[in-house]
Amino acid sequence: MHYSFLHLIEVLGLFSFAVSGAFFAIEKKLDPFGVLIISFVTAIGGGTLRDIMIGNLPVGWLRNLTTIYAILSASFLTMFFEKYVRKLTKTLFLFDALGLGFYTILGIELAIQQHLSIGVCMALGTITACFGGVIRDVLLNNVPLVFRKELYAVASLAGGGIYFLLKETSLNADVSKIICILIIFSIRAIAVRYKIMLPLFYAKRN
Amino acid sequence: MHYSFLHLIEVLGLFSFAVSGAFFAIEKKLDPFGVLIISFVTAIGGGTLRDIMIGNLPVGWLRNLTTIYAILSASFLTMFFEKYVRKLTKTLFLFDALGLGFYTILGIELAIQQHLSIGVCMALGTITACFGGVIRDVLLNNVPLVFRKELYAVASLAGGGIYFLLKETSLNADVSKIICILIIFSIRAIAVRYKIMLPLFYAKRN
Amino acid sequence: MHYSFLHLIEVLGLFSFAVSGAFFAIEKKLDPFGVLIISFVTAIGGGTLRDIMIGNLPVGWLRNLTTIYAILSASFLTMFFEKYVRKLTKTLFLFDALGLGFYTILGIELAIQQHLSIGVCMALGTITACFGGVIRDVLLNNVPLVFRKELYAVASLAGGGIYFLLKETSLNADVSKIICILIIFSIRAIAVRYKIMLPLFYAKRN
Repeated sequence: MHYSFLHLIEVLGLFSFAVSGAFFAIEKKLDPFGVLIISFVTAIGGGTLRDIMIGNLPVGWLRNLTTIYAILSASFLTMFFEKYVRKLTKTLFLFDALGLGFYTILGIELAIQQHLSIGVCMALGTITACFGGVIRDVLLNNVPLVFRKELYAVASLAGGGIYFLLKETSLNADVSKIICILIIFSIRAIAVRYKIMLPLFYAKRN
Repeated sequence: MHYSFLHLIEVLGLFSFAVSGAFFAIEKKLDPFGVLIISFVTAIGGGTLRDIMIGNLPVGWLRNLTTIYAILSASFLTMFFEKYVRKLTKTLFLFDALGLGFYTILGIELAIQQHLSIGVCMALGTITACFGGVIRDVLLNNVPLVFRKELYAVASLAGGGIYFLLKETSLNADVSKIICILIIFSIRAIAVRYKIMLPLFYAKRN
Repeated sequence: MHYSFLHLIEVLGLFSFAVSGAFFAIEKKLDPFGVLIISFVTAIGGGTLRDIMIGNLPVGWLRNLTTIYAILSASFLTMFFEKYVRKLTKTLFLFDALGLGFYTILGIELAIQQHLSIGVCMALGTITACFGGVIRDVLLNNVPLVFRKELYAVASLAGGGIYFLLKETSLNADVSKIICILIIFSIRAIAVRYKIMLPLFYAKRN
C-alpha cells in the first residue's frame, strides 16, 4: 500500500515537473520539439545529473518506460490543451511540491546505497529534486529560479535532514519517507502562501 | 567501400559542425581559445552527452585523434581564413545535413548495443546529432536554435524511425544506414529550402 | 614536505574559486542558497566534468570532506563578511592563480592514469582548472569569462605542455609540479598586470 502511494506521488510529481517545463518553453515561443525537450529535461534533469555523478549508468530513466510515457503525455497534453491546463495551476503546484518531496527522498536513498556521507546524501537529494529546473532555466536562458524563489531547495534540504533523524528512530522506513515528503510539501506550501524567502544578509549591489 | 563512405561522411560532418561552432563564437567576439572550445563543444558535445548517459566512459573522442585533428583544423582554418570559409556556406550546409544523418545513426547503433528500447535509441540518436549545437548555444548565452529552427531534430527523429523499419527488412546494414542518412539529409534540405517549421499549435503569448 | 605544500595550494585555490563564485552570485542578487550553489559549482565544476568524462565515478569531491568544508566556509564567510573579503581582492587573485596551476597539474595526472594521449591530458588539465568558471557563468547567464579574459586557459595549457617536457627530465615529480604551478601562476600574473589578451586575428564583426 505504501509502495503504491509512493509510486503515485512519483508519477504526479513527474507529470507536474513536465507540465511546468512545457509552460516555460511555450512562453519562450519554442517549437513543439523544443517544448518536448524542455519538458523532459525539467522532469528527468535532476535524476540524470545525480546518476551521472554517482556513476549509476546508464542513467535510470533510459530503462524506465513509465517515466517516459508520463513525460510525453504531460508535454503533449500541455501543448494541445494549454488553456485548460493553465487553470489547474493550484493543483499542479500541489503535485510539484509533492514531487519535490518525493525526489528528495529518492535521491537520498540512492546516495545512501553508495555509502556517501550524510551531508552529501542530502545534497544529492536536493540535486535530484531541484536541478531539472536549473537545467530548464539554463536552456531557456534564464538565471535559475531556484536560486531566487521561495524556499524551494531549502525545503528539500530540511526534509532531507529530518529523514536522517527519523532513520535513527524505530519508525518504519516507508512511514519515515511519507512523513518527510509531507514536511517538505508543507514548508514549500507555507513559503509560497506567505511569500517567505531566504534573507539576503549580504549588502545589496546598487 | 561502404565503410570508407561512412567514414568520409563522419569527417565532413564533424568538420562542418566545428566550422559552425567557430562562426558562432567569432560573432560573439570570443578570443581564439573561446573559438576553439566552442568548435569542439559543437562537434563533440552530442556524442559526449550520449556516452556519459549510457556509461560509455571515458567518452569516445578522448581516444580518437582523427576527431581531434579534424576539429582543430576546422577551427583554425575558420579563424585564419574566415572570409573565404564564409563563402562556402552552402557546401557547409550540405556537410552539416550529412553529419546530422551520420551522427543520428551512430548514436542509435551505440544505444542498441546497450539493449535500450527503440524510442530511447531514437532519442539518443537525436541527442548525438543535435546536442552539440544545444551546448554551443548555452555557452554563447542563446536560446538553443534547434528548439526553434526548421525541422532539424525532427529530421533526425524521422530518419531514426525509418532506420528501425529498415532493420526489419533483409537489407544490408550499411545500405540501410546510407539510405537513412540520405533521408535525413533530404528532409533537412527541403525544410530549409521551403522554410518549413513545426506548427506552433498552442496559443501564442502576447 | 612537498606534499603538504601542494595540499596547501589545493585548499587555497579551492577557497579562492569558491569566494569568486560567491562574489559573482551576490552581484546577480541570488539568495543564500544560490550563492552557496554557485560557490560549489565554481570550485568543483571543472573536476566534476573531468571525472565524468574519464569515468572516475562517483566524482571525487563526493567522498572528500575537506573539499566540502573549504567551500562551505568560503561561501559563508563571503556572505557574512562581504565588505571585508572584497578588500582581499589581490590576495584572492594570487590564490586563484595558484589554484589555476594546481588544478591543471592535478587534472593532467588523473588523465595520465587513464593512458590518454598528451594533447588530451593537457586538455583535461585545462578543463579541470577552468570549467568551474564556465559552469558558473552559464548558470549566471553570462558568456563565459574564460573565453574572453587575459590568458587564463592559455596559461593552463602552456604550463601543461611544460609539465610533459619536465617529465622527460630526471627531475623529481613533486619539484616538476611546483615548477609548473609557478609558471602558470607567473603567466597569469603577468597577463593581468599588463592586460595581455590573445590577439583576435579574425575580422571583427561590426
